[in-house]
Amino acid sequence: MTNQNKACSKSYIAGVSFSIHPMSDQFIEIIKGALKEVDTSKVHMKTDDVTTTVRGKLVHVFDVTKAIFLHAAKTGEHVAFQATYSLGCPGDSQGEAFMAEDETLLNSSLVKDIKQSVASKFSLYPLGGGDYMDVIYAQIEAMKKHVSVSPTHYSTRLDGEAVAIFDGLENVFQATVEGGSSHTVMTVSISANSPSHKGDMKNG
Amino acid sequence: MTNQNKACSKSYIAGVSFSIHPMSDQFIEIIKGALKEVDTSKVHMKTDDVTTTVRGKLVHVFDVTKAIFLHAAKTGEHVAFQATYSLGCPGDSQGEAFMAEDETLLNSSLVKDIKQSVASKFSLYPLGGGDYMDVIYAQIEAMKKHVSVSPTHYSTRLDGEAVAIFDGLENVFQATVEGGSSHTVMTVSISANSPSHKGDMKNG
Repeated sequence: MTNQNKACSKSYIAGVSFSIHPMSDQFIEIIKGALKEVDTSKVHMKTDDVTTTVRGKLVHVFDVTKAIFLHAAKTGEHVAFQATYSLGCPGDSQGEAFMAEDETLLNSSLVKDIKQSVASKFSLYPLGGGDYMDVIYAQIEAMKKHVSVSPTHYSTRLDGEAVAIFDGLENVFQATVEGGSSHTVMTVSISANSPSHKGDMKNG
Repeated sequence: MTNQNKACSKSYIAGVSFSIHPMSDQFIEIIKGALKEVDTSKVHMKTDDVTTTVRGKLVHVFDVTKAIFLHAAKTGEHVAFQATYSLGCPGDSQGEAFMAEDETLLNSSLVKDIKQSVASKFSLYPLGGGDYMDVIYAQIEAMKKHVSVSPTHYSTRLDGEAVAIFDGLENVFQATVEGGSSHTVMTVSISANSPSHKGDMKNG
């Protein structure tokens, strides 16, 4: 492991660009309601008209995105979540201000009991080298203990509880970084309460 | 250029995993309506409850996704589009069946006059080497002739007409592949008719 990778492993300044889409006329209320229930004080968060960006410690980035998704999905509306998680050594000045935060999660305990079955796909892109393929295969194996895992084109499909899937994704992402990838990107699509699950139609 | 890259440049078997989300109670009708208007006969397309996958020649993959987005957005509803375009040499057997198709676009002329102002973000991940940074910078410069371009965290923001943005994205993607990246991934988020554009709220 190089010094550069060591530095990354210690600090874990991560970020995510995501969007959440309730397929409902009430989409504004659902998004605003979910955001109101989530404590974002340990991350830097910025929303514009295309995506929301969250930066800070990796654990808080996952804590916040998991909570926003669950609070939106528990409304029972069909909600889609799309995210690109990113971790790279190159400095992230605004995010760094939030690296002084401790690792105590602010939202996890409030959402851990929300039962929300979801369908998900993720793809991992280790851009920074390392034995990443072994890491990915090992992590996909590990994920099989928690959720249903199946291969699809361009990604791996996960079916199960949202909490287990977010926790699994965080593990995969972190393990890839620790496997030596100095720049790692992970794309995630999650669908909750889709009418497709009831056979009404086929689309995310 | 290696023989492998040469083979890729000739064939351009590309794929995309995407989803389209109308933020409306009528989301099923909007999606079904858009799909009905698009000719997908030159690609392999498969939809499940998380994403839709389209595979075939690169030109048809962009032609089909651009048309689906525009037919959904022209309803005037707030529509979000998320896609991961992918091109890699490793064989894609079901997609290959569609490589015999010619390059005449089936949808482009039907959507080229649809005026649809959008906000978009894209990120390019050349996983296969090559002088890709020079290619990316050159392509971002080239895109400035057509749409407004600005840097954002983890991606590049584009504002302008949807047709110009899709055409620009196709050019960027193809140029990156031709620049020597044997495996290229590009993530795209596009938002149309967002209330944020009118200042109602801030979210995609």
